[in-house]
Amino acid sequence: MRLVVVGGVAAGTKAASRARRVAPEAEITVYQEEPEPSISECGLPYFLSGMVGSRDRLVARTPDEFAEKDIEVLVRHRVESVDPGSKRLSIRNLQTGETFEDGYDRLVIATGAQAVLPPIPGADLDGVFALRFLTDADGILRHIRDRSPKKAVVVGGGYIGLEVAENLHRSGMDVSLVEAAGQLAGAYGPEVAKIIEDHLREKGVHCLFTGEAVEAFLGNGKGRVRAVRFGEREIEAEVVIAGVGVRPVVSLAHEAGAEIGKTGAIRVDRRMKTSLPDVWAAGDCVETVNLVSGEPAWSPLGDTANQMGRVAGTNAVISPGEEGALEFPGVLETSVFKVFDLAVGRTGLSGHEAERAGFEVASAGMETMSKAGYFPGAGEVFIKLICDAKSGRLLGAETAGSGADKLVDVCATALWGRLSVSDMVNMDLAYAPPFGPTLSPVIQAATVLSGSL
Amino acid sequence: MRLVVVGGVAAGTKAASRARRVAPEAEITVYQEEPEPSISECGLPYFLSGMVGSRDRLVARTPDEFAEKDIEVLVRHRVESVDPGSKRLSIRNLQTGETFEDGYDRLVIATGAQAVLPPIPGADLDGVFALRFLTDADGILRHIRDRSPKKAVVVGGGYIGLEVAENLHRSGMDVSLVEAAGQLAGAYGPEVAKIIEDHLREKGVHCLFTGEAVEAFLGNGKGRVRAVRFGEREIEAEVVIAGVGVRPVVSLAHEAGAEIGKTGAIRVDRRMKTSLPDVWAAGDCVETVNLVSGEPAWSPLGDTANQMGRVAGTNAVISPGEEGALEFPGVLETSVFKVFDLAVGRTGLSGHEAERAGFEVASAGMETMSKAGYFPGAGEVFIKLICDAKSGRLLGAETAGSGADKLVDVCATALWGRLSVSDMVNMDLAYAPPFGPTLSPVIQAATVLSGSL
Repeated sequence: MRLVVVGGVAAGTKAASRARRVAPEAEITVYQEEPEPSISECGLPYFLSGMVGSRDRLVARTPDEFAEKDIEVLVRHRVESVDPGSKRLSIRNLQTGETFEDGYDRLVIATGAQAVLPPIPGADLDGVFALRFLTDADGILRHIRDRSPKKAVVVGGGYIGLEVAENLHRSGMDVSLVEAAGQLAGAYGPEVAKIIEDHLREKGVHCLFTGEAVEAFLGNGKGRVRAVRFGEREIEAEVVIAGVGVRPVVSLAHEAGAEIGKTGAIRVDRRMKTSLPDVWAAGDCVETVNLVSGEPAWSPLGDTANQMGRVAGTNAVISPGEEGALEFPGVLETSVFKVFDLAVGRTGLSGHEAERAGFEVASAGMETMSKAGYFPGAGEVFIKLICDAKSGRLLGAETAGSGADKLVDVCATALWGRLSVSDMVNMDLAYAPPFGPTLSPVIQAATVLSGSL
Repeated sequence: MRLVVVGGVAAGTKAASRARRVAPEAEITVYQEEPEPSISECGLPYFLSGMVGSRDRLVARTPDEFAEKDIEVLVRHRVESVDPGSKRLSIRNLQTGETFEDGYDRLVIATGAQAVLPPIPGADLDGVFALRFLTDADGILRHIRDRSPKKAVVVGGGYIGLEVAENLHRSGMDVSLVEAAGQLAGAYGPEVAKIIEDHLREKGVHCLFTGEAVEAFLGNGKGRVRAVRFGEREIEAEVVIAGVGVRPVVSLAHEAGAEIGKTGAIRVDRRMKTSLPDVWAAGDCVETVNLVSGEPAWSPLGDTANQMGRVAGTNAVISPGEEGALEFPGVLETSVFKVFDLAVGRTGLSGHEAERAGFEVASAGMETMSKAGYFPGAGEVFIKLICDAKSGRLLGAETAGSGADKLVDVCATALWGRLSVSDMVNMDLAYAPPFGPTLSPVIQAATVLSGSL
């Protein structure tokens, strides 16, 4: 049996590796455009500041390492079309420009997502970048080395923009951040947005502009960016990084006739099967379901891609009806990021999302200590729980501050177990003074919220 | 209505505070022997080394602060007997020696636990201590100040013994640790015990004796300890701290006729009601149930005491049959401790406990990274999951190393939600490089374990 995987990184390489374990006899080829088959894209912002020092450290595995497992990885190859009837692919070798054909018995599409470059005049100026691939980071670092920019503008106040702002600031630049929405971190409530803003200012990122849509990148007359314009302002910019979003890469699947979901990503079932025969898909290019709202969700994150890749890779190589098929149930859209010393996390639905999904919403937010107050290193943490006002069922959580990553994982697990906030009041979590206050902030917030219902 | 609470600290003061909120008109008195009504006993080991610098910081609230909430707290008072028929108490004022009587409508017993001093010759020598109360810590610190001991022996390798060993070592003493069982941290499997031993040695606690029962504390002829004897050995000791265990303080309840459970602690129902009319109990003196095994459990921990106190205090002041009664469902016997830089946690049942409870047990243990491997500060962490081999239901977890406190809380929450290890394979936990590897160690271990079933 011949398995072809289109796309590497998290989902594609995971699917290939998993298929190899499940079907030792299968012939497996991965085609991908990027030069490295398996890199840690989430580490890219830290590569900019040197916090992750070496490029090699981000490369999880090389083509040679895959070859040892008898997986052929062809980098710098673009799959240009799929014919699901004849099960043929047309592929372009990006180094030579040649095209050739290949066939498959089973196909996994893992074409990922790409950064959206804002449709703004001047976006093509030298010095204006997106940050999605290692090659983008290489370009930014080259620009920094060649031009020694002192003034940086980050466009977009989502988690990538915030991580980039931190790392450019660490590199010694004056950083301004411009966000079109009314607050930073639009996936969060206003309390968390305020905590992030305060923290950025405390760390020296003073120029925060929210509710400001960039109108143009202005050049210096020699094709190089010199400023960013919005409203009445022009801010000097020797380097601009736009972190305004990503979108799924679906043209290959779409042109082959695969159904596209309402999020714009490829529709798959719980087995990661597309609407095309013998074609599975996984990772940032697919649509899944938010398990709290039941609505279609697009959740382009490395851990989710990895889990989906495992399911797709397994199912692609077992015979139909055979035992051992795996299912991917959906996501909670859990995420966490760090900006300077602040951890920020969320899981499930925000208050607004829960209302939109038709729940009658109750919520409680509180600031508390991350450790026993008398213990060295105790810090503050904010936690907000969102629940269904009728049943008390937990719908979501937001956390920010010391230990926010731990609290969000506890809440994500509680959501996974479909707990109510009253179930959570007596949860038996681990306590010792170096690790938390006597009662976990999760329990404290659940107690307040369940008491208010 | 008059509510009397016997005992302060976590459960008693929580019950009183909660009763005040639920029943603003109730008359509430707390009697307790210790001079401080609400102290953080879990912080005591850190007080020995000065890591928690000030005694006041451990005192959560003073009698005056309770008085402001109209709760009378009488410290240095011992309740010597309860007559549940007449609802009368006999109380001794420990400062004056006088006894007097009081009556109650509702009673909450929160008499706590006491340290077991080993029945070993010489246990009464000057310089031999247990560590349970703030007054014990005061005595130890006085001894350290007066005698400047350089050689310390800690008897008992459970979490209190380990925390004390760390803090005496931090104070500059040569510390030996003697444990009668064959391994340190008997509540854990051998893998975690080995990790703890290695860490202690790495930190300079070289004299670890396991499988050695102390036979005698030897004096210097002037009533002061000079050595500890076991087997063929005599180890020099200018101070000895015995952390060999605690037991519930139940004589008051027992003599009043309350049923005692098979763990030796007071039997209560889910509403924390004892077998006596109008008498509730909470905290370290009561028996609860282990929710995984269904067996009676005694779990003397500050967070559990606090949760139980809330339930007992609420139920004690509402009228029978009235809405608003709370329930305490039981525990997972979750715990965590720190020894030097190592975090160690557990929840649910260990492999042995699960076998004893009648499960057919499967388990998987693994060492993995606590963060993305390329991220600064990434450390190793061990995780072991224990499940029912037939259903895959999670039964317990042990963790040790970087981020072990987070992982054990995720596992405790999964146990609370009665998840199986296959449910846990696709859990949507939060990932970003500063906070974990792409897939949480919990998910990695669940994937291995569910794959082995």
